[in-house]
Amino acid sequence: MVINIETVFSNIGLVFDNELGTYVHQKTRIPITVRFDNDKQKLTLLDQTKLPFDTLTWMTADWKEAAFSGIRNMIVRGSQAIGIAAAYSMLLAAKSLASNSKMFLSELKKAGEIIKSVRQTASPLMWAVDKTFKAAEHKFKYTNNVDDAVQAVKDKADFILASDLILCSFLRKEGRKYLEDGDVILTHCNAGSLSSSYGGHALGMLEEAVAEGIDLLVISKETRPRSQGFKLTTWELLKANVPVIIITDNMISSAIKRYNITKIIVGADRVSKDGSLANKIGTHDVAIISSAYKIPFYVATTVSTVDLKTEKGDNIPIEERNKEEILYYYRLEAKDKKDHRILSEKALMQWPLEKNISNKVVPKKGNTTIYNPAFDITPPKLINYYITDIGTFKPTEIKKLTIKEIEQKVNNRLKKWGF
Amino acid sequence: MVINIETVFSNIGLVFDNELGTYVHQKTRIPITVRFDNDKQKLTLLDQTKLPFDTLTWMTADWKEAAFSGIRNMIVRGSQAIGIAAAYSMLLAAKSLASNSKMFLSELKKAGEIIKSVRQTASPLMWAVDKTFKAAEHKFKYTNNVDDAVQAVKDKADFILASDLILCSFLRKEGRKYLEDGDVILTHCNAGSLSSSYGGHALGMLEEAVAEGIDLLVISKETRPRSQGFKLTTWELLKANVPVIIITDNMISSAIKRYNITKIIVGADRVSKDGSLANKIGTHDVAIISSAYKIPFYVATTVSTVDLKTEKGDNIPIEERNKEEILYYYRLEAKDKKDHRILSEKALMQWPLEKNISNKVVPKKGNTTIYNPAFDITPPKLINYYITDIGTFKPTEIKKLTIKEIEQKVNNRLKKWGF
Repeated sequence: MVINIETVFSNIGLVFDNELGTYVHQKTRIPITVRFDNDKQKLTLLDQTKLPFDTLTWMTADWKEAAFSGIRNMIVRGSQAIGIAAAYSMLLAAKSLASNSKMFLSELKKAGEIIKSVRQTASPLMWAVDKTFKAAEHKFKYTNNVDDAVQAVKDKADFILASDLILCSFLRKEGRKYLEDGDVILTHCNAGSLSSSYGGHALGMLEEAVAEGIDLLVISKETRPRSQGFKLTTWELLKANVPVIIITDNMISSAIKRYNITKIIVGADRVSKDGSLANKIGTHDVAIISSAYKIPFYVATTVSTVDLKTEKGDNIPIEERNKEEILYYYRLEAKDKKDHRILSEKALMQWPLEKNISNKVVPKKGNTTIYNPAFDITPPKLINYYITDIGTFKPTEIKKLTIKEIEQKVNNRLKKWGF
Repeated sequence: MVINIETVFSNIGLVFDNELGTYVHQKTRIPITVRFDNDKQKLTLLDQTKLPFDTLTWMTADWKEAAFSGIRNMIVRGSQAIGIAAAYSMLLAAKSLASNSKMFLSELKKAGEIIKSVRQTASPLMWAVDKTFKAAEHKFKYTNNVDDAVQAVKDKADFILASDLILCSFLRKEGRKYLEDGDVILTHCNAGSLSSSYGGHALGMLEEAVAEGIDLLVISKETRPRSQGFKLTTWELLKANVPVIIITDNMISSAIKRYNITKIIVGADRVSKDGSLANKIGTHDVAIISSAYKIPFYVATTVSTVDLKTEKGDNIPIEERNKEEILYYYRLEAKDKKDHRILSEKALMQWPLEKNISNKVVPKKGNTTIYNPAFDITPPKLINYYITDIGTFKPTEIKKLTIKEIEQKVNNRLKKWGF
């Protein structure tokens, strides 16, 4: 099916912002995170590495740059947004491979494998690459025309983006049911509009409720090492006029007591068949602590993160990221204090010293290792509900879903929008 | 009793380091954190705000500078070290007030109240100010001679320092009993030599065990916002040849699973009569999570933190510190990225914007508040044992202690050292 993506943007309430060079919501000015610019023929991302300091877009026509700079270096992040960016990366790859029709499909498959490899945990990434490849394969086998196959990738990627926009709007409405006047919500990382194309997930439903005049208060955890809770969630919530309290990651029980937190709402990077949740590192700690206080723990996610092929949470691969993510601020601190003559001329400029940092899992005496997993797994027993675009499920109900049933329900949602 | 403090240093294994200008342990080169330089007549602190980048001492002859720069701005930190620094701050105050014998005691009392006010949670600070004031008061009432009273403060401060050194060595030996070959210990913040005069607390016993050839692995949590776990604990453990793995504060359950953590050991800022623990923010979160995994949770502390006058944990005042502690790294990041032209000329240099930061407990719509409590309270049910210089206690046994009994046991320990 061919989509007029601009019509979907308009129906969602997105308008083009000339200065930013992409679409933003007409009221909150929260931008879309990912789209394809048809005039420039470039993937266009909101540059989330620059937020909250700069609100800028980043563009590329090169699929490898899209995969490595765009996705791996987290210009785009959040599982669903990554999936859409991967779909358009496949489009860029297809376009670059179009001159050699003989090798087209095999090379596109290879490109897809590379794109899938840049991040390991988010299931929409794998799913979007497979979907776009199959679209190309199907069209090419049918017409033997590369240009048609490229167009099929484009149509599929547009469909994935349009679906996410529409399904996020259903998720917002579904989640809205669970919010009451006076709720104090603890969230972790950024499971917001910025983690979807637009309007998504845990924060989307809060923004929806606050726009309706419901009084909510959000507690946002910093989320070391990349601080998405400090930088992105705060930025997004302030744009949407939602009051927010910032805490560091070690203040969970203190904040529960101080602010009488009523609900925990987080997002998902992948949900396995047994109802386990892979999400940003720290989610499991929050779940254990909220369970000790008997505070309901909700996961807000579109069903694109549900991965029925992965039986158990323990089977979900956990990405370990570079230690520099953790070390960065300390290098800045050393430099800052040296510049201001707070530190001496002889002061170390890095810590721990390179000679002390070991890559081994368990360091030897006198050595240190920096452990930097990007995600953790929360077991189903700690989760009250998965709130999704196709309804709300207990973790034990995930395994009863079938891929066919999910697709059917998603299609029913899309039909309401004339798809 | 008059102490020859240099003899105590020597017996502990401390030697004078000319370059550093204070005493360090002859083997590990870990410095003493606080002492009084008799030649220069100055309080001498290891400057912990500069660690791990610079290893330098900081000196002052001004009691207000000692209180505000030294203690409040955390050149010295850790409950017991703060107590000793407070005792010598009282000495500096007494010396500066010695010219007016009429006002001496009343002014010294006022100075003591100011010194007590700079940090609220650590009980040794209150205790040391009261002890030194009473020494002055007692001597002055007896001799009516200010110089004698000043000397009494000096003797009492030296006695507090000597006691801490000696009692820490007892604590190390007591704690050593609870450690086995192969233990993997999670600790939080810095409850180490650097939080005592020398050799103290949670890390001291680990260092003692490793020096004996016991194989241990320590997991050190970053401890935002001031990162004592990253900066101080790692620095101290590497000096003592203890292998250490650094994690951020949101990786507790991930680290438990990945490294098979066998014990949690933390320090104490104050222990109330009901066995509740006031310690660095994040301790309670660790306790809840370790309890879910049934991992033993130990508190290592000298009994100077036991405050039998405070009945319940909820009665312990919790210091809230400046929001700049949390914001600092983000200001550096904005500057760094602007310097490197990663951010635009128009980029914000601060986040959240000043106009969005509210000082209210609950911010209004479109506003944010930064919550920065320095400590939290862990209830007794989550604590297995308090390991102290006078023996090991269950939390329920704390209330059975009396001030007299504690003093007697402490005196028995000191007698073994010839006091």
